[in-house]
Amino acid sequence: MLNSRIITLLSDFGLSDVYVGVMKGVISQINPTLTMVDLTHQIPAQNIPAGRFCLMNAYSYFPHGTVHIAVVDPGVGSKRRSVAVEFDSGFLVAPDNGLLSGVLSQSVVKTAVELTNPKYWRTSTPSTTFHGRDIFAPVGAHLASGIPLEQLGKVIDPKTLIQLPIGECSQSDRGATGYIQYVDHFGNLITNIPGTYVQEKAWSVLVSDVSIPGCTTYHDQPVGSAIALIGSHGWVEIAVNCGNAQSQLQINWGDRVETINN
Amino acid sequence: MLNSRIITLLSDFGLSDVYVGVMKGVISQINPTLTMVDLTHQIPAQNIPAGRFCLMNAYSYFPHGTVHIAVVDPGVGSKRRSVAVEFDSGFLVAPDNGLLSGVLSQSVVKTAVELTNPKYWRTSTPSTTFHGRDIFAPVGAHLASGIPLEQLGKVIDPKTLIQLPIGECSQSDRGATGYIQYVDHFGNLITNIPGTYVQEKAWSVLVSDVSIPGCTTYHDQPVGSAIALIGSHGWVEIAVNCGNAQSQLQINWGDRVETINN
Amino acid sequence: MLNSRIITLLSDFGLSDVYVGVMKGVISQINPTLTMVDLTHQIPAQNIPAGRFCLMNAYSYFPHGTVHIAVVDPGVGSKRRSVAVEFDSGFLVAPDNGLLSGVLSQSVVKTAVELTNPKYWRTSTPSTTFHGRDIFAPVGAHLASGIPLEQLGKVIDPKTLIQLPIGECSQSDRGATGYIQYVDHFGNLITNIPGTYVQEKAWSVLVSDVSIPGCTTYHDQPVGSAIALIGSHGWVEIAVNCGNAQSQLQINWGDRVETINN
Repeated sequence: MLNSRIITLLSDFGLSDVYVGVMKGVISQINPTLTMVDLTHQIPAQNIPAGRFCLMNAYSYFPHGTVHIAVVDPGVGSKRRSVAVEFDSGFLVAPDNGLLSGVLSQSVVKTAVELTNPKYWRTSTPSTTFHGRDIFAPVGAHLASGIPLEQLGKVIDPKTLIQLPIGECSQSDRGATGYIQYVDHFGNLITNIPGTYVQEKAWSVLVSDVSIPGCTTYHDQPVGSAIALIGSHGWVEIAVNCGNAQSQLQINWGDRVETINN
Repeated sequence: MLNSRIITLLSDFGLSDVYVGVMKGVISQINPTLTMVDLTHQIPAQNIPAGRFCLMNAYSYFPHGTVHIAVVDPGVGSKRRSVAVEFDSGFLVAPDNGLLSGVLSQSVVKTAVELTNPKYWRTSTPSTTFHGRDIFAPVGAHLASGIPLEQLGKVIDPKTLIQLPIGECSQSDRGATGYIQYVDHFGNLITNIPGTYVQEKAWSVLVSDVSIPGCTTYHDQPVGSAIALIGSHGWVEIAVNCGNAQSQLQINWGDRVETINN
Repeated sequence: MLNSRIITLLSDFGLSDVYVGVMKGVISQINPTLTMVDLTHQIPAQNIPAGRFCLMNAYSYFPHGTVHIAVVDPGVGSKRRSVAVEFDSGFLVAPDNGLLSGVLSQSVVKTAVELTNPKYWRTSTPSTTFHGRDIFAPVGAHLASGIPLEQLGKVIDPKTLIQLPIGECSQSDRGATGYIQYVDHFGNLITNIPGTYVQEKAWSVLVSDVSIPGCTTYHDQPVGSAIALIGSHGWVEIAVNCGNAQSQLQINWGDRVETINN
């Protein structure tokens, strides 16, 4: 069964160069029977919070035992650690820079290791600029092929893994206050306010002095109108029915958002 | 043999978010041995005619029995139906909004069902915003794993499936009149005039008062010159040898085009 | 073992149309068990040197026997030859326009054939505009399925394959002079000066009258500063720590670069 394991790949490498293809080549040299699935490679360059958000919203849809390789790595070649983690849903392989902290905030860690054993790297003298190719891809391929996590390096205390908090979201009787943590391809604005924080009956969102009604589907307002809803990620989200909320409302990453219980 | 079936995916989800990766995760949770092939995920947002065009021009190149999941779904969460169709080449899974009508115009439908059986969804309480994840991906995975179509919901009359006509294309002794139905990545302008409508000997295209000679390859005119030809899709197409016809000729989606038999 | 062979795909087709999906469909019709890996489909349109660079920097990471299909083909439909090559690492299938010459400059060719046998094409009357679908994809699928190269067409002298030189790079006592041969997704500027040409101890790069220090990692200079280093491809590269060297330095494809041994 081990060789039917799935490897997912997430990075900021984009798709215009061969960096992603090269990582897949390295994986297939180690085990050509592994299945590789792209989460996305279009994380904005060096944007660790966006990578954390995307990984956190994707991992749970994969089979138990899946190996998730994530590389948004502005610190490549510096002293930041490379790590692998076994958790209740599978395995994570990444630089230790907070990229994993969204997943970890929802998970039980079994074991964490620093990747110190060059036996499982592509080469014992990895480049200083592309650990995706030289360390993370081969380590992920070995994990997915059944190599025990402990062989990959020295065991570390999971509490020492870098945490990157999602950012302040405060709740009051009136509602909650947070910010835009992600903007998707459709221009939908995803806040850091959990959907569980809004009353199901009547609520609205206040952003840039504009009040937007809380709804349950894109169609609860006419085409072209702004709506707030609990998005498929589970966060409060602002959208425009058949339109682009980011450009129409001129709201962007990091902007402050308030929910109000009516 | 069933577990070697292929699933194709087409959507307007783009590749910058994890929506496509999540659909693949859901599929792999149901059956990790399925092969998934992307047709494209860069259909312009909510553009059902572009999705219909792309699906119609791709499905026939896949093995018999392939399951095509297509999600361009501005009506998600509204009362539009979700459907699955068995046709002479395989299976289609999509919202019933016209997205399938290009394929259906070329095909024999065996059975069509409305997806009313939550047993084959990811959850019996699907989100109102992401049926790709909650309904279409899992239904496609079950179909590709051998679940009979009839178990997925109630059988419907295929004649009730929404039709989205390709648009008027009229033929006369002089030639044919149609419009630009698609612009590709190279800036090639694809009309809705079938290649069979132009004489093979001598013809030209008239668009925005410019006459463009009918040719058989990109090289029948010098580099940088406009040509008309019957493209690989089988439609009359306008291109520029080693250039971008859309930007050079300032012609766009929906513009009127005439072919003239010389 | 043959049916576990991998096919890689590289093209300038982009991902917004179904061209790449159609090639994968054609391959899966011939052999649905083949594994297909994208190198990139975002080679700038008709840019053969960029395609040559990308293919050259990717092929060696794949398993022995991999079949690489590369289609950047401004001459499609003209008299340029279609070829397949068996070399020490696997197989290449492409138009004979220089796209393969980077790989070939590093390889031993066993056999080269011109693709003249329509038995292994999708149709004996291929389109004049999409040989990726009609010739290269099916030929690659047959090769990966074990068809001997010699059956695909007539054997040709490998010396007659079109060479596209990487461009002049001259070495002196003072250093080396070359040019920017590729700009990646991060804005990193990759020269045609081999990393072996710079002294490991102390060196710098001179470009547009700006001197940039030679370093070993992105972090040897402060965030926002320009650095020169030997990139993961093995070429001298100019980058900005956590930034975009192309936009910050206003240097582009083809610009002249000098390395200086300090």
